[in-house]
Amino acid sequence: MAQQKKMVNDITAMDEDFAKWYTDVVKKAELVEYTSVKGCMVIRPYGYAIWENIQKTMDEMFKATGHENVCMPMFIPESLLNKEKDHVEGFAPEVAWVTHGGSEKLEERLCVRPTSETLFCEHYKAIVHSYRDLPKLYNQWVSVVRWEKTTRPFLRTREFLWQEGHTIHATAEEAREETVKMLNVYADFCENILAIPVVKGVKTEKERFAGAEDTYTIEALMHDGKALQSGTSHYFGDGFAKAFDIQFTDKDNRLKYPFQTSWGTTTRLIGAIIMTHGDDNGLVLPPKIAPIQVIVVPIAQHKEGVLEKAAELCERLSKVCRVKSDITDNSAGWKFAEYEMKGVPLRLEIGPKDIENNQCVLVRRDNGEKVFVSLDELEEKIPELLEAVHKGLYDKAFERRKNMTYVAHDFDEMKFLADNKPGFIKAMWCGSRECEDRLKEEVGVTSRCIPYEQEKLSDVCVCCGKPADKMLYWGKAY
Amino acid sequence: MAQQKKMVNDITAMDEDFAKWYTDVVKKAELVEYTSVKGCMVIRPYGYAIWENIQKTMDEMFKATGHENVCMPMFIPESLLNKEKDHVEGFAPEVAWVTHGGSEKLEERLCVRPTSETLFCEHYKAIVHSYRDLPKLYNQWVSVVRWEKTTRPFLRTREFLWQEGHTIHATAEEAREETVKMLNVYADFCENILAIPVVKGVKTEKERFAGAEDTYTIEALMHDGKALQSGTSHYFGDGFAKAFDIQFTDKDNRLKYPFQTSWGTTTRLIGAIIMTHGDDNGLVLPPKIAPIQVIVVPIAQHKEGVLEKAAELCERLSKVCRVKSDITDNSAGWKFAEYEMKGVPLRLEIGPKDIENNQCVLVRRDNGEKVFVSLDELEEKIPELLEAVHKGLYDKAFERRKNMTYVAHDFDEMKFLADNKPGFIKAMWCGSRECEDRLKEEVGVTSRCIPYEQEKLSDVCVCCGKPADKMLYWGKAY
Repeated sequence: MAQQKKMVNDITAMDEDFAKWYTDVVKKAELVEYTSVKGCMVIRPYGYAIWENIQKTMDEMFKATGHENVCMPMFIPESLLNKEKDHVEGFAPEVAWVTHGGSEKLEERLCVRPTSETLFCEHYKAIVHSYRDLPKLYNQWVSVVRWEKTTRPFLRTREFLWQEGHTIHATAEEAREETVKMLNVYADFCENILAIPVVKGVKTEKERFAGAEDTYTIEALMHDGKALQSGTSHYFGDGFAKAFDIQFTDKDNRLKYPFQTSWGTTTRLIGAIIMTHGDDNGLVLPPKIAPIQVIVVPIAQHKEGVLEKAAELCERLSKVCRVKSDITDNSAGWKFAEYEMKGVPLRLEIGPKDIENNQCVLVRRDNGEKVFVSLDELEEKIPELLEAVHKGLYDKAFERRKNMTYVAHDFDEMKFLADNKPGFIKAMWCGSRECEDRLKEEVGVTSRCIPYEQEKLSDVCVCCGKPADKMLYWGKAY
Repeated sequence: MAQQKKMVNDITAMDEDFAKWYTDVVKKAELVEYTSVKGCMVIRPYGYAIWENIQKTMDEMFKATGHENVCMPMFIPESLLNKEKDHVEGFAPEVAWVTHGGSEKLEERLCVRPTSETLFCEHYKAIVHSYRDLPKLYNQWVSVVRWEKTTRPFLRTREFLWQEGHTIHATAEEAREETVKMLNVYADFCENILAIPVVKGVKTEKERFAGAEDTYTIEALMHDGKALQSGTSHYFGDGFAKAFDIQFTDKDNRLKYPFQTSWGTTTRLIGAIIMTHGDDNGLVLPPKIAPIQVIVVPIAQHKEGVLEKAAELCERLSKVCRVKSDITDNSAGWKFAEYEMKGVPLRLEIGPKDIENNQCVLVRRDNGEKVFVSLDELEEKIPELLEAVHKGLYDKAFERRKNMTYVAHDFDEMKFLADNKPGFIKAMWCGSRECEDRLKEEVGVTSRCIPYEQEKLSDVCVCCGKPADKMLYWGKAY
């Protein structure tokens, strides 16, 4: 069928130019379109449908863990943003400022939220008074703005869609538990829904969120060996509560400062899907969030009964999966290429011979495997195959990560690996900011995280040779 | 039970001060909270859950009529906003301007979208080339910003949540059909989901959306006799296409301008729900969008088996409705008041005697009616009662509107009604802008719409006495 493929799949090969491959895929799979609003993008129907599926599943996970959705204003008055010192230092350089409403100059500038800790703090102050008011477990699905210099669709845009969870608790223990719980929800989501294996860990102080006492992270490894931070969860201690003077009367009748967390994931996850599962034929979607899970392609559709059968199967299968049939007058080969580009997990081919034999052909997008299936067994077979595609994608990504994870024992080895072997580098670290800075400057890698699963690779820091007891993941990152 | 009610229901009476009643309800039912961001609000979990239910149902209606969701940037460059003359004149005076990114002044100001026609036009220009690319039937769920001077929660806020549909078609007929179809979807939604009767019609030229050839509207009548525009659908002709130079090659191989529509509803609908169904005990929610449809209140809950039975019923009923049980140690009376304030459609009371008799009490929020129901019949009875509440709310609102709709034949009558009889005024109009302006200035009413259902009330204009063949709804409006 290769010669029948339409030009749509004529995209840059991954090996040739990964960045170009990526932008070819996002454009040709019709996920986004550029606009005259620099650094912003239009998310097109197919791209947005992926986001809707991500949202739906994740939102259910949030609600199942007791969280409620709210909606905060998109603006933050400058004086409010300024209340927590570290936080404002981190974000002020990259916010968009509203200075005029209509033709009038505003008395106080407003920034478009880059994140909403300050707004939540103001709200907590208004509604939290007693231990009875705690905890508050909130989330919101909104867009935020960060004035980035260089941008790429989904990976880094000036405006992006995200969810931001914000919670407030009576005790530090409970808040820390929440922080970890939500990181686990993210990891669970990435692995079991998106089929993306992740490393769970803690950020170094240098890489922490502005204002956080600890930032937990999940890190995924992309096809090209670069790391992608895929979700973060922050423990704030009572720092924000003190800065915003939020206090509550505890059971013992004493005034206390509560403890806070926040956690977020973004449309970046779509970038992670593309760069984890995609191939030279385009997008490959994990079945659980694919807008179309099965595409029905009629073969020799001009022959009697073929289109009718395709429509009948589509109707029948809509009870067990998200299915669509393509009955346009494009050639079958054109359709194959089109839905390969769009990453549809399963293709169902049905032609006159198949109908005669009461069967059809099912083709997996992830590995091209074809099977003949009796039409009577489709309702059982399709969910099984979708599960197999999910597992296939996860295993392949896991295997690749394993093969692209290296160990460095000293500076030279680290430098050699960073220059020649794209991937994660595991190495010991003494804990000093100097070593972290030097590795960034001279080797070009950043610390990705201090993983939960520690290994003792040696006794000394990969950079300075002094005693070290922490094993870190390092890498080049998006 | 009245004396047991907690102070929460101690709100201003509607008749005493309707505006104060309204803000009491939004605060005490915990729908919103104010912020230091002037004119903006926090939508709290209970308020946001109502919006989520509105969104979910409406989104299904949009998808069932072939629409796809997308997401446009929140910013519009000034030059893009300026492209359609009428449109920019209408919106420029009330937009928020972003002038700085971080510490740098932008080369070109960006406004925060007040509505997204210009962005959709730019996008159409990029993706529509042939008749094969048409129609595009798009929608997005986002927030928009309009720099209003005076604001009220849900009714008029500087930032508000909405959906905006945008479609583009090969022919004028098809675009006009879409405009009308979506107005009907809105009317259907208001009447069959929110239990709010609406008048469908067309706006006069004066009241049209900036840039539209025609604006269709649904108008609802609030408790206080003021009108609330609850959804609008705009037909643009090819005006935007010409301004943005969007052309497509038609089947006859000639370049043509396509035709566009847009249509929107907002969080205002929550204001409409409050002011249509609410009463002096607080919110009254239409069952189809109520976050909690049935609240289970255990009576004498310290008695053996009561809490267990409440939990068991709650678990059982979760299959047929959105149900919650309140097992806090507040008194039953306190709970009654709490969920009345929150407008929960049905209260289920279960106490030791009830358990003995294998029954419970169901109380309707809309009219206070109590019925004893066998525990074996709850699965049938509750959906029936929810439907009855919906119908009861609709009928009551319909009856009230009927009683508050008046007819004016001349200017003096119009003036008398406007001054003394809150409600809709039906009157003939000659079609001149002068009369419309004079009625606004001297009588204080605006034209709400030229309804589909015309009645010939007389031969002459209510204002100037010249020949008139259009019957309009007039009123004071939010």
